[in-house]
Order: sequence, then C-alpha cells, then structure tokens
Amino acid sequence: MSKPILYSAWTSSCSSRVRIALALKKIDYEYHTVDIKTEEEMREFAMTNPAKKIPILKINGLVLTESLAIIEYLDEVYPDPPLLPKDAGERAHARAIAFHIASNIQPLQNKAIIHKLNEKVPGYGAEVMDQRRHLPWLRSPGRASEDVLWEYCVGDQITIADLNLPSIVYNATDKYNVDITPYPLICKINKTLSEIPEFQASEPARQPDAPKKI
Amino acid sequence: MSKPILYSAWTSSCSSRVRIALALKKIDYEYHTVDIKTEEEMREFAMTNPAKKIPILKINGLVLTESLAIIEYLDEVYPDPPLLPKDAGERAHARAIAFHIASNIQPLQNKAIIHKLNEKVPGYGAEVMDQRRHLPWLRSPGRASEDVLWEYCVGDQITIADLNLPSIVYNATDKYNVDITPYPLICKINKTLSEIPEFQASEPARQPDAPKKI
Repeated sequence: MSKPILYSAWTSSCSSRVRIALALKKIDYEYHTVDIKTEEEMREFAMTNPAKKIPILKINGLVLTESLAIIEYLDEVYPDPPLLPKDAGERAHARAIAFHIASNIQPLQNKAIIHKLNEKVPGYGAEVMDQRRHLPWLRSPGRASEDVLWEYCVGDQITIADLNLPSIVYNATDKYNVDITPYPLICKINKTLSEIPEFQASEPARQPDAPKKI
Repeated sequence: MSKPILYSAWTSSCSSRVRIALALKKIDYEYHTVDIKTEEEMREFAMTNPAKKIPILKINGLVLTESLAIIEYLDEVYPDPPLLPKDAGERAHARAIAFHIASNIQPLQNKAIIHKLNEKVPGYGAEVMDQRRHLPWLRSPGRASEDVLWEYCVGDQITIADLNLPSIVYNATDKYNVDITPYPLICKINKTLSEIPEFQASEPARQPDAPKKI
C-alpha cells in the first residue's frame, strides 16, 4: 500500500482535526497543499471531491471526505490509541461534542460565509454569526458543574471531542477576538491539549503551507 | 427502565433523523413537544440541554444530544437493523454523507439564521445560503456516474446517510423552492425512502405537534 495522502490547508479547521488523529495514531502520510486559485485547479480538485472541500484522505485505496467520518474510519482501522471512550454513553457524549462543534460552531466561523455577509453589510458577518452564543455549551460539556475534574472533554482519555476543540478556540480568539476567559474549562482543556506534541505538530502555523515567519 | 423520551418538534430536521432511527429499530418512546415560547420554558429546557437544541433523547438513564451522536448510540446498543454498512470504507462513506448534510447543508437551511439575515436585508438570507450549491455533491454521493444502481445512498441497505436525506429535500423544496429535478439520484432515493412506513411515520406532518389539517 502506498503512503496515505492528506489534502489539507494550514488554515483549515476541519483538516486540523484529521492531522491530530493521524499524529496520535502515528500514521505517516504525505501532506498535499490545496490552494485553489485557478479555474483549472478547481476543476481538477473537484474531480477528486465534488464537494470541493478539504480535508480529503486517500488511504488504503479509498478517497475519504468529511473530517469526522475520516476520524471514525481511522479509529476503526487503526484502533491504537482509541479516540472513543469504552462506555457507550460516554462515546455518545464525546461524539455529541464533536458534532456540536462541527455542525453548529465551525460552519458559523466559515470565512466564506462571513465574507459574503460583510460584503453586503460591513461588519454584519461577525454580528450575525455571533461566536459567543455557542460557547457556553462547551463550558460544561455534560458536566454537573465546573468542578468536575476531567482532564479532557470527556474523561481522562483524549477523544474525538478533543480533536475538535483547538481549532474553534483558535478561530474564536484569533479571528473574532472572543474573550474565552469566562469559560475556564475550555481554557483549561485547551491548554492541556496545547502541550501535547501531536496537537502541537498539527497547529496551523506548523504546516508546510503556512506563511514562513521572518 | 422507563420508556425513552424524545424531545422533538415536528419541523425539526435534526429530530426527524432520530425519529426515523427509533422507528426502524422499533424502539417505543414518548414524544415530548418542545415549543419554547416563554422565558420560563426556555430556562427549564436549558437546564436539560445547555445548547438549547433539540433533539434530546432520554434513554437508559442517559440524556443524549446531537442527532448523529444519538443515532450512533442507538446503532451500537440496538444493532438490529444496522444503520452502518459492514465494510469500513462504505461505513466512512455513509457517515460522510450524513455529516455533509448535518454540517454543510442543514445549518444553512436554519430558519433562525435565514430570518436574521432577511431582517437586515429582505431576501438576502436565501441568497447567501444558496441551497443549490451543496446539492450537486449529493447527486452522486461517491458514485462514478448517475447509472450506478444502488437502491439507497450507500449500497442496498438503509444507512445513517438515508436518515438525513428526506428533511433536507423537504427544506430545499418546501421552504426554498429549489428545483431538484436536475438531481435524478436524489429524487429517486428520496422517493424510495418516502414509501417506507418508518420514514412515513417520521414525516413532519405526522407528528403529534404538527398543525391539524382541516
């Protein structure tokens, strides 16, 4: 089998989830930058992925799309370390956090949409998409109170939920200047994750296509 | 164990996915309407679900949120009939379609967002959210061409992908007047699904809280 190929972009939140999963599972892969600038490039890319979206993972003869589906696949085929808890209820909970971020928070952080809105009414994109209204749910993801001492989003093991957290915190703070200090659990978990080498290696600025620092 | 309770609303696309899963797996449940009209109701509901979102399924002592996480739980704990294909690649593909609908199509069909946009610039919501741009991907979900003769979205078995299809077709056609005839595969699969009793029982108009026809 040839080496897996990840079609990614350094700024892509959805790609970052997959990068973290590949790193944690120690799967070596080629990183292909997708930077669609011309009609021709777009057509070529669209042939691989009619949704014209990254990430795409080519692996074991398959072309996989949608970050969370890719992560579930990796977890089934490369089970070590597991990215889902053993208990069915906790698994549901970890997936709920991942899906909530992927379908409720991230789409509203999407630059293309915000840009379209701002084009029409300057400043309106950020106003409509109000990053703040979804964050309180993450503050206590299914926890009775702030003082439950789980190390990660669900329990004391890294799960699919944690793979989704860094990029939305990055988007909220770096792109939209949201103050996340009122959410101490998010801050705490995000700090814990930011100290893990596999999460560090997956950070936007460390990708091959990120702008070089001078 | 007491009977499961589904917090739902007849118009909710995300709830309809769970209703279909419960029907296919023949799980008897109580239907609780969520119609948040007052501050007090909202506070009460928010205590159960800080995301203030439906569906919620109370089952086996758990409070589950996020439709796709709920469906994965049901499929693990009540495996008959399975809602995921046996092959890992096909499972990834079925999940990709489900996630694509849940995170790319449905959020942009959300009434609250469209309403906010229209408030500012009449008619602009529908324009920005342009239902059409995402539909072509569904036309051929991972298929080489239109003539691949699968009965459902992935293969010849109902999967999690199919549970997501009827509500977005309903939203696109009924709410936004999108002509879906250019997408014959979507039309064909949607028609097949619409003739299955469990899908029929889950249709918006058949829910206890739907307006009565006179």
